[in-house]
Order: sequence, then C-alpha cells, then structure tokens
Amino acid sequence: MKGYLLVLDGIDGCGKTSQINHLSNWLPRSGLMPKGAKLHVTKEPGGTHLGTALRQLLLNTSNESAPESTTELLLYAADRAQHISQVIRPALEKGDWILSDRFSGSTIAYQGYGRKLNIDIIETLEAIATQGVSADITLWLKVGIEESLRRRKATNNDRIEAEGKDFLEKVSLGFEALAEQRNWITICANQEAPLVSQHIENALKNYFENLLVI
Amino acid sequence: MKGYLLVLDGIDGCGKTSQINHLSNWLPRSGLMPKGAKLHVTKEPGGTHLGTALRQLLLNTSNESAPESTTELLLYAADRAQHISQVIRPALEKGDWILSDRFSGSTIAYQGYGRKLNIDIIETLEAIATQGVSADITLWLKVGIEESLRRRKATNNDRIEAEGKDFLEKVSLGFEALAEQRNWITICANQEAPLVSQHIENALKNYFENLLVI
Repeated sequence: MKGYLLVLDGIDGCGKTSQINHLSNWLPRSGLMPKGAKLHVTKEPGGTHLGTALRQLLLNTSNESAPESTTELLLYAADRAQHISQVIRPALEKGDWILSDRFSGSTIAYQGYGRKLNIDIIETLEAIATQGVSADITLWLKVGIEESLRRRKATNNDRIEAEGKDFLEKVSLGFEALAEQRNWITICANQEAPLVSQHIENALKNYFENLLVI
Repeated sequence: MKGYLLVLDGIDGCGKTSQINHLSNWLPRSGLMPKGAKLHVTKEPGGTHLGTALRQLLLNTSNESAPESTTELLLYAADRAQHISQVIRPALEKGDWILSDRFSGSTIAYQGYGRKLNIDIIETLEAIATQGVSADITLWLKVGIEESLRRRKATNNDRIEAEGKDFLEKVSLGFEALAEQRNWITICANQEAPLVSQHIENALKNYFENLLVI
C-alpha cells in the first residue's frame, strides 16, 4: 500500500488553513484513501517538537535574533529534515497519507524567488533535507496579491508576513514557475472558501481517477 | 590591516575553556596583535543571540526534541552562518581578531567522523555556512580519551558529551585527520593548564615570527 504526501502551498492569505481543515474532514470520507490508511495533518515549519521551537525562531519579529538569509534557509532545511525523519517518512512507510501545510516548494518560492538566494544552494539543501522524499501531489492555492493582503490583518503579521507587497509578488512568481516545472495542481483561490474546497475535491478525484486508468 | 580568526578545537575535556580564558587575557598584551585591533572572544554553537537558542536545542538532553543526525548537521550550519554574518565577518572586515571556541572542524570531526555522516554533504554545508570565511589559525588541543573523561564530571553532560567513549575515539581520529589535512597546530593538552598555555603562547609566537620572515 503506497502512502501519499499531499501538500497545500501558496502565499500567506491564500486560504491554506481553511482548506487543510476542510480536507482533514473530507479526505478520510472521500473514498480516495485505502482502507486502514490514516491521515496525518501536519505543517512546515513546525511539524515536530523541535520544529515548533524552530518555527518560533523563524517567525518571531525580534530584530536581535532575526536569522540572516542563509541562516533562515538552513533553519527551514533543519525543520524539514526533522519533519521527514520523524513524521513523513514513518507515515509513508506505513502506507498512511500526509496532508502538509507547506513543503519544500515554499523554500524555493520564498527564499529563492523572494529573497533571491542562489537556487542551486537551495536545491542542494532541499536534497539534503528531504532525503529522497518528494510530494506526491501539490495543490497550489493561487491567490491575487491584493486579495491576500485584504484577507490578512495588518496586525499580528509574523516576520515573513511583514515583508510587504513587492516581496509577495516575487514569491507568487516563484510559485507560478514551480507549478509549471513540477506539475502541481493549480487551484484558483480568489473565491469563497466553499468554492475553493469544491475545486480541490474535484481536482483530487480527477487525479486519482486518471491514476486508476493508467 | 588583516583580521585574524583563531580557533581552539578538540574533544570535550581538552581544556578549551581554560585556554580561551587565558588567551583572552594574554593575546591583547602579547605584542602579536596590531595596535587598534580588538579581540572578540566567541564560540560555536552559540556565538549570537539566535545561536544561543540553537545551542540549547542542540545540546539539551530531552529525547522528545532531540535532532536527528541530518537535522543536527543543518542546525550547526545555521548557527555558523549566523555567527559568520553577525560576528566573524564584521570583525574581520575591521581588522579585528576573533578567538573562537570551536569552528567548522568540529562539525567534520563530530558529525563526519563521530556520526559517520557523508563528508561530501558536510563539506557542502560548510561552504554554504562559512560563505568563504576560513580559520587563519586552528589550535587543536589533543588530549587522551581517558584523560578527557577523567576531567569531565559524569553528571551534567550535555547531549553530545553523553555519547560515550567509542564516539569520542572516532571524533578524536577526525581531529587527527583534520590537523594533518588543514595544517592545524597540534598542542599536547594532557598536561596541566599552565603548561598547555605556555605551549600555545610559543606556538603563536612562532607562527607570527615565521609569517614576518616570509
């Protein structure tokens, strides 16, 4: 029985959290998962005990301890390596399904396209951190920058969210490029949450129907 | 005016802390440092504000949040990247001297030789983390395993120190190999601290005398 790693990705404000909540209820009843397979809902950064501490270091807004860009990249990689070792790989080996809020695509979009760090270095780190594990299905929730900004409260933004519009535009172009290169499923996320959920359900059903035909 | 990065390295119990303390007093009065150059005393992991939190994550003994070996490697690299960006490079650019308790050699000795992680991966991460900065002088405090264990209290060992004798032997062989490959200065550290200090002073004086002759 093959496990599946499903990833939801996109810029902040794209509605990932609502859709992860929806999918965590819908997927086990969808008929798509084999009997006996469990669904693990997780996230990056912060999918492990150690990762929770790393998430705090990555997203807190204190200038004194803010990571430089190379440090930031290495901390995301460390979070991912721990997540793979302790959560994702053990679940896949049992044939379980994992639904993750972000995965390695986020690093390429945010640190590569957003911060303009060297893509070769990012991909080298991705290979080290993921240890051969890649997402089976990535759903990119594509949302307009203006819409994403409207949805987010001006207060309580974390360190990455506080980067502003120019940064978000670069990150969004990164997701666009990745969606094409890596055959992600693009979901128009400018609509109301229930409509987005419907599109995601249809996309997943189609994906698995086509898989059966092949 | 060229800055200098001086590193003291070796297994736990080799006497680094005492010798760093001694050198932090002796070096500024030694006549070796150019007028106006300051001495910065620092360490890895933990030479920055963020690094202090990373040191805690790396060395604490809670099993729940203990990093897997690849995670550990990435966290040491993150600590180093931050240390280079915030402390070492700015000091070198001012022509200052830095005295660091451990640097990248420790990662090769502990994670490469001790944990048997892939040396190519470690060297790739070293290149990413150090961003072109390397130690000018590394003093390896070579101590026997039995002697190092005698010096360390059985209690209060951190997660790395608690690894035991076999691990330490592998790490020590790693330092031996590095000392040869990288032209480190080897200091016999089985003796009393004042004698070790004397040897270090002589080694540094010789180093800079030879440099002047060249």
